Amino acid sequence: MTNTPPHRLIYEESVRRALLEDLGRAGDLTSDSIIPASASARAEIVARKAGRIAGFPVASAVFDLIDPRLKTSILIPDGQDAAAGASVAFIEGPARALLSAERTALNFLGHLSGIATATRDICRAIEGTKAKVVCTRKTTPGLRALEKYAVRAGGGSNHRFGLDDAVLIKDNHLIMAGGVHEAVRRVRRTVGHMVKIEVEVDRLDQLEEALQAKVDAVLLDNMDLETLRTAIRMAFGKAITEVSGGITLESAPEIASTGADLLSIGWLTHSAPALDLSLDFKPLADQSSAAFV
Amino acid sequence: MTNTPPHRLIYEESVRRALLEDLGRAGDLTSDSIIPASASARAEIVARKAGRIAGFPVASAVFDLIDPRLKTSILIPDGQDAAAGASVAFIEGPARALLSAERTALNFLGHLSGIATATRDICRAIEGTKAKVVCTRKTTPGLRALEKYAVRAGGGSNHRFGLDDAVLIKDNHLIMAGGVHEAVRRVRRTVGHMVKIEVEVDRLDQLEEALQAKVDAVLLDNMDLETLRTAIRMAFGKAITEVSGGITLESAPEIASTGADLLSIGWLTHSAPALDLSLDFKPLADQSSAAFV
Amino acid sequence: MTNTPPHRLIYEESVRRALLEDLGRAGDLTSDSIIPASASARAEIVARKAGRIAGFPVASAVFDLIDPRLKTSILIPDGQDAAAGASVAFIEGPARALLSAERTALNFLGHLSGIATATRDICRAIEGTKAKVVCTRKTTPGLRALEKYAVRAGGGSNHRFGLDDAVLIKDNHLIMAGGVHEAVRRVRRTVGHMVKIEVEVDRLDQLEEALQAKVDAVLLDNMDLETLRTAIRMAFGKAITEVSGGITLESAPEIASTGADLLSIGWLTHSAPALDLSLDFKPLADQSSAAFV
Amino acid sequence: MTNTPPHRLIYEESVRRALLEDLGRAGDLTSDSIIPASASARAEIVARKAGRIAGFPVASAVFDLIDPRLKTSILIPDGQDAAAGASVAFIEGPARALLSAERTALNFLGHLSGIATATRDICRAIEGTKAKVVCTRKTTPGLRALEKYAVRAGGGSNHRFGLDDAVLIKDNHLIMAGGVHEAVRRVRRTVGHMVKIEVEVDRLDQLEEALQAKVDAVLLDNMDLETLRTAIRMAFGKAITEVSGGITLESAPEIASTGADLLSIGWLTHSAPALDLSLDFKPLADQSSAAFV
Amino acid sequence: MTNTPPHRLIYEESVRRALLEDLGRAGDLTSDSIIPASASARAEIVARKAGRIAGFPVASAVFDLIDPRLKTSILIPDGQDAAAGASVAFIEGPARALLSAERTALNFLGHLSGIATATRDICRAIEGTKAKVVCTRKTTPGLRALEKYAVRAGGGSNHRFGLDDAVLIKDNHLIMAGGVHEAVRRVRRTVGHMVKIEVEVDRLDQLEEALQAKVDAVLLDNMDLETLRTAIRMAFGKAITEVSGGITLESAPEIASTGADLLSIGWLTHSAPALDLSLDFKPLADQSSAAFV
Amino acid sequence: MTNTPPHRLIYEESVRRALLEDLGRAGDLTSDSIIPASASARAEIVARKAGRIAGFPVASAVFDLIDPRLKTSILIPDGQDAAAGASVAFIEGPARALLSAERTALNFLGHLSGIATATRDICRAIEGTKAKVVCTRKTTPGLRALEKYAVRAGGGSNHRFGLDDAVLIKDNHLIMAGGVHEAVRRVRRTVGHMVKIEVEVDRLDQLEEALQAKVDAVLLDNMDLETLRTAIRMAFGKAITEVSGGITLESAPEIASTGADLLSIGWLTHSAPALDLSLDFKPLADQSSAAFV
Repeated sequence: MTNTPPHRLIYEESVRRALLEDLGRAGDLTSDSIIPASASARAEIVARKAGRIAGFPVASAVFDLIDPRLKTSILIPDGQDAAAGASVAFIEGPARALLSAERTALNFLGHLSGIATATRDICRAIEGTKAKVVCTRKTTPGLRALEKYAVRAGGGSNHRFGLDDAVLIKDNHLIMAGGVHEAVRRVRRTVGHMVKIEVEVDRLDQLEEALQAKVDAVLLDNMDLETLRTAIRMAFGKAITEVSGGITLESAPEIASTGADLLSIGWLTHSAPALDLSLDFKPLADQSSAAFV
Repeated sequence: MTNTPPHRLIYEESVRRALLEDLGRAGDLTSDSIIPASASARAEIVARKAGRIAGFPVASAVFDLIDPRLKTSILIPDGQDAAAGASVAFIEGPARALLSAERTALNFLGHLSGIATATRDICRAIEGTKAKVVCTRKTTPGLRALEKYAVRAGGGSNHRFGLDDAVLIKDNHLIMAGGVHEAVRRVRRTVGHMVKIEVEVDRLDQLEEALQAKVDAVLLDNMDLETLRTAIRMAFGKAITEVSGGITLESAPEIASTGADLLSIGWLTHSAPALDLSLDFKPLADQSSAAFV
Repeated sequence: MTNTPPHRLIYEESVRRALLEDLGRAGDLTSDSIIPASASARAEIVARKAGRIAGFPVASAVFDLIDPRLKTSILIPDGQDAAAGASVAFIEGPARALLSAERTALNFLGHLSGIATATRDICRAIEGTKAKVVCTRKTTPGLRALEKYAVRAGGGSNHRFGLDDAVLIKDNHLIMAGGVHEAVRRVRRTVGHMVKIEVEVDRLDQLEEALQAKVDAVLLDNMDLETLRTAIRMAFGKAITEVSGGITLESAPEIASTGADLLSIGWLTHSAPALDLSLDFKPLADQSSAAFV
Repeated sequence: MTNTPPHRLIYEESVRRALLEDLGRAGDLTSDSIIPASASARAEIVARKAGRIAGFPVASAVFDLIDPRLKTSILIPDGQDAAAGASVAFIEGPARALLSAERTALNFLGHLSGIATATRDICRAIEGTKAKVVCTRKTTPGLRALEKYAVRAGGGSNHRFGLDDAVLIKDNHLIMAGGVHEAVRRVRRTVGHMVKIEVEVDRLDQLEEALQAKVDAVLLDNMDLETLRTAIRMAFGKAITEVSGGITLESAPEIASTGADLLSIGWLTHSAPALDLSLDFKPLADQSSAAFV
Repeated sequence: MTNTPPHRLIYEESVRRALLEDLGRAGDLTSDSIIPASASARAEIVARKAGRIAGFPVASAVFDLIDPRLKTSILIPDGQDAAAGASVAFIEGPARALLSAERTALNFLGHLSGIATATRDICRAIEGTKAKVVCTRKTTPGLRALEKYAVRAGGGSNHRFGLDDAVLIKDNHLIMAGGVHEAVRRVRRTVGHMVKIEVEVDRLDQLEEALQAKVDAVLLDNMDLETLRTAIRMAFGKAITEVSGGITLESAPEIASTGADLLSIGWLTHSAPALDLSLDFKPLADQSSAAFV
Repeated sequence: MTNTPPHRLIYEESVRRALLEDLGRAGDLTSDSIIPASASARAEIVARKAGRIAGFPVASAVFDLIDPRLKTSILIPDGQDAAAGASVAFIEGPARALLSAERTALNFLGHLSGIATATRDICRAIEGTKAKVVCTRKTTPGLRALEKYAVRAGGGSNHRFGLDDAVLIKDNHLIMAGGVHEAVRRVRRTVGHMVKIEVEVDRLDQLEEALQAKVDAVLLDNMDLETLRTAIRMAFGKAITEVSGGITLESAPEIASTGADLLSIGWLTHSAPALDLSLDFKPLADQSSAAFV
């Protein structure tokens, strides 16, 4: 399985801002006071709980931007699972820089691994069905590209990244257009040939209208299981079927068993708890604190 | 209770980046195709679940940056509780702009209200004790000032905002310094007179050393209840006592009952689920979609 | 026909940078020295040559950022044609600001109108065929969203906006993958369900392979007319057909007559000459230069 | 001949923005899906048409920002001519990065080489006269410093870079001041001793007034050849003479033969077609695509 | 006397950064805690010492960026003198915003007025001579355009604004070129016709060489008064003469009496003490603090 | 003595902006014309006057950003004293880059060393007393973190860095709150446990009220020596005492002898004259200028 992380250019500015948000104007008062500039250290990142890892390119960029001499050795790379207590990576280099970067690196890594873990869990829950898990635009402001990547690291797939890379006609648009047919007509008149069109429907007659309009995908929102099965039969071979509306780890398997192509889940990116990771730090044997005067 | 939100200058750039993250290069393909430029609409923000509201200055900035003609009327302001199904605010103005801003506004509002709600719950759980709830630096990268504000909106209090506005000597620093006494000495030699000093301790002998060093606060980390009670007795009148380590809604009351000044809880900012909010949209009666050709 | 310009948030930073690029550190030495701060003026933007207008939202932002008191009245809006010598717009307000903004406003307007004009010309040349004109990613660095908009203002349609909103498998990718089938397989394994896939082919056997892979569109590159006709027959009802390779105003009609869906033309955005526009300036009757001492 | 490109600090931000404009949020979907992360490649930049090369420091910065392991070997450097079909440069390194950077690098290189080529052509056309070719402020927004450099690479010379590095009193300023004498007086009262002053004139009496005011240069705008000859005789030894107004490749030699010091040509920077360059790509022998699973 | 301040676009980003530098992440803890959001106030800016005022457009932008409801009424505008104790301006509006902006506004105003005052003093000292006072590139990083403006507000004139708007050949360049003649030849071969050339000389033979090279200006560095007089006689009618090197308020008159055109003084911008200004604040009568609960 | 400079991330953007402020659009016209690209040079930074050095990390970043091949060897590091005429550092590398960076590097170094020198002088003047020297928020806009560091390099200590890292209740706040007690009560209700509180008082009854409110520090503003002595006795053992108001090098010893903990001096950062430093440049023996054609 390949899952390319976003290019560093895409998130580097976010990393820089996150570091400056922590350093402020005066920097790391505690470490700068206590740790000699010349001291080196080695630290281990440990998974306190089991989970799927995601975010090492970002965490590495954090360490690299603080001090390019910090070197990261990754034991459990993105997209793989860590057992509780597992050693995930080692970082070695200047001790001050290591401590100044610790919180920012862990904040990224814990947040993204939390998303990957939640995605992995739901993917596992529906294994054996043909359904894939997709995320939404309900992401944390400023972190969309990274969170979409974390979903992929958990085994999920990505819906559109923004308002501009695909069309999704939702209830509010249908109200304004007066119906599915007219809404799709207006879109087709405007957008380019490389843009896919999906329509959100919550009734079978809307679905029928959407299928007649030959849209690429239909978002079946908040339907009960029986309606859902009918809808998926209707759409079979005509449009990709995506299901949304309060899908949980518990309800996912039954929903997936309807034959839907995709389960769309907002809470993967807006409510997954962070994975608990810690950075355990030790000075290197040959740099005694006595050297600090 | 007063709780001033951060000045708009502090978060405006985050809002702009969040909007551009959603608009991309081509903007809102769906709304721009379907909604006439001249159409106005009115929308209601509804709390799908009960919770504490936080983030309206930010959401208002989202609407304002998309189109200054969008006007927000807030029914349940920051720091107050919404029942499930409650109408939280109305937004009125150009329909396209309203839809283009919807997701970004709700992403901020749901995220911050989620943090406020979790904080409120834990504050309620320890009501009657003298303890206050404080947050940590385990925040979402790029959103620290806003998340700290959401904690206050939930009734909590703020620990330091970054590495530079207070000293917190942690285990890794103690390892490097060789002990509490030496660590505090190094800090006092360096930092200014307006900087408070806290030391993280996990044993009573460390606590004793910290109290002798006359630090402003002690962070009692991962102690069992009995040790905690002893520690708080020892520190009484000498230093502010802050407890940390896996505090949950369930364990909080008993921990608070030890007489600790502060309960420090990381998951308020890194793992609180978003509050479920929706924006329900209707066109204004006098702007029929027929006007769109 | 509706053609929504990009949201101002998308290009405002480009406008600010363009103005600062002209103002430098010392600002408009000439106007600041000569024009009294209190003088007002009225200026007319005139099309020196005939062409299709595009870019007024951008030009208006230029005037607005220099001085919000400058008011623009547009006579020939974006997407409409100006005859040679036609009055296109009037701007009125502080004279200094008007002159300081002139060049930047005209640089945007002339550049974008040039692209719109070239697009219009080629669209007219193929009128009566079913083909549409599309642009490419061969755009001027920093101006892609605006240039894509100018193409729409000229009657053309947009191909993808970047590397991330659609897949286009080109010759270099085919070399790396070893063939169309394998390339498409790798893409399908990775990208989300809202991403369309196009393959560039220059031989009929490649086309056959692409059609079997059920891609959304095929880019028929540098084929002679006869091959092109065969290709379009083969692809009929199976994939969108896009033709590229040295299409000129002269060759476009014959190529369009093959029944292709799209003609892809890079030079619309990288080589269209600017439309020649001037800003003719007159002081308002009641603000004599004598007032300046 | 030496022609120093702008310092990288001056254009690096433009390059970063251009890359992000192409990468968007999701990055290069096609290459990331198809090309193994470990694959290397070598590519050749070929001039499809003959022209003067300009822009390699910028193109190299594109490749360097995407991946510092990409190495560029330049065969035909900036300021030299490439025959049609000539190999201009080789780039070698990670294949994915090479393909992700290709379009942005070529967009800069083709645009700047197009300007250099047009400038070279007009310089050649007036060889043997004393006249030099100069560009104007009619540049593409955001690219002025680079376009001015491309003009120099074509053999031309630079007029002022913005509103702030020299004074150019134009018709609109003369209207506001009431005449050449008063306009120059106001400027002299204000600007520093290192700022040169030029006046645009379109009549001989204006020229006479400008020469009496001892300005550094006169811009003879839209004069017929005979008037031009008189004007240049009048100005001889008193001011630098610059001619402007619809100068073409055809009309340039005769205009230059009037003895003018400078021919000022706006279309060099706003309308020169891009030079057609391609990047031809081949995998390195020892990295078979079979390695990609 | 007209002295146009830099356009707000030029310094607005500096003002925003200065405000954020003071607000940090948590904002104005003191005022936000103490001052009710609804309280208004009126404050007076007072000159504690006599001096020349400069910087009100910048200070007004500070107040405006914090809160557009803050209104500034200026009694002593830029370029005029305030007596010790004079009331310079009034600001009225929201009390919190006023206090949050106070320090940043005064920091700009005091710094720029300090430069204007120092410049005024030296201009007065040489009144009656033909010499003008000019500043250098020895400015405070980030504030060059504003400091150059403050020099003008003090009655001085501006030398070049940066490395790119004029040529100044200094001792280090002469060492590299091997002499004045060769240095000027290299410059002439490269720079455009609107760029002036000045050469720094410290010996009369160098001056002779510079005059033969027909440069626009000569910088006579560290010459004794007698040599200076000879130099100025030599340069008379041939080049602008600028004198530099340790010029003080005391030595300026005698140096100016040599007939030099310009006295160049670095300390105006790098060492002038700030003008002492204070902001005295009073609540408006009708907003009692009792309203704050 | 350790004094850690701010992390480079904190000031790197200021350095980049300062360089671009000097390079403008066209770069270093003089050096680019005169110095061959291949020439190397070695330069010495010399202290023309005696002083305390501060700012080398910043100056090194200037050289590094212009050209990473420039290498700096520091003879007198930050925090040490240079005699008049002393050699402070050597820089070696590409000659053009060295000259282009010279002024920006010296502007930072001279400004910060000036602050360090002024601070050192006042620290020396009060040697033998227990008082420390502290700076204020009266800093140069954009340079606060660097100026605070320079104060430390001079032997001083830092007051708060902004409005957000400590509370300082000043006269204007007391007016709004109606008294010390109420002001402190409002602050305590709002701010977190790691924030120190200081109150500015100018009368002994205010001081008494502040001490009863158990604030961390009191700022004794503009008191005469006798009142000061009484105040310091009153506050002994209860609060840190800080004295402010027109403290000069002359008055400092007597004020310090009152037993105050801190002397607060604004002019250290807003009015200290720059230290006079020069960069003396010589070409390397083996790169003759003859190589330049």
